[in-house]
Amino acid sequence: MIQKVDHIGIAVRSLEEAMPLYEKALGLKFLKMEEVESQKVRTAFYEAGETHIELLEPTAEDSPIAIFLEKKGEGIHHIAFGTDDVLGQLAQASGEGVRLIHETPIDGAGGKQVAFLHPKSTKGVLTELCSH
Amino acid sequence: MIQKVDHIGIAVRSLEEAMPLYEKALGLKFLKMEEVESQKVRTAFYEAGETHIELLEPTAEDSPIAIFLEKKGEGIHHIAFGTDDVLGQLAQASGEGVRLIHETPIDGAGGKQVAFLHPKSTKGVLTELCSH
Repeated sequence: MIQKVDHIGIAVRSLEEAMPLYEKALGLKFLKMEEVESQKVRTAFYEAGETHIELLEPTAEDSPIAIFLEKKGEGIHHIAFGTDDVLGQLAQASGEGVRLIHETPIDGAGGKQVAFLHPKSTKGVLTELCSH
Repeated sequence: MIQKVDHIGIAVRSLEEAMPLYEKALGLKFLKMEEVESQKVRTAFYEAGETHIELLEPTAEDSPIAIFLEKKGEGIHHIAFGTDDVLGQLAQASGEGVRLIHETPIDGAGGKQVAFLHPKSTKGVLTELCSH
């Protein structure tokens, strides 16, 4: 079962330029910065209630975020739903005809188990399921 | 102060086609459907913890959502942050150089006070502030 929107991933060209928006203009609480080498991104996390805002800056030209920025420009990249049963949610989605990017969860940042649904079968919304 | 992500607005061509994804494939709790005549949209709401997922289907060709779909296709349209002080948040954002779509809050669905920040000054993310 899905318990919450765990985080919203936002693709930005520069963390340094985007962070004042979330920290000063919106006044969200800054949590941490983290580099995720496997995804070739630097991230900055902010807290908005039970949801985190995750700013994503590419660290290489072949980063998935660099490719997204090239195609679509800065903006919301994905929504992640937090669940206590990623595998069960994947089975449920797959059973309803949703195409999966990951058939089984992979290791994500912060020791989470994560898996993505394919945006072609989720009406254009790149959707992540993650444990929390 | 911002308390939570109040809702995430998602532009879809057809509620009927999109609703099974949220209701069956993800298993979110359906809350209500509502037509917002001023915005020329039909909406369907789902619950994910303290955040609502708001599906938006245009009811006219000149609906803001129809124009968004034309330009960008289906996908996430906006993020709304819930606050107890929309006017104060607007002043804070404006003071940090953010361009406002609404200088003062307007009446939104469900008796909320809402105001939008301009995506040109929010790194491509159409950002709403709303009372709750």
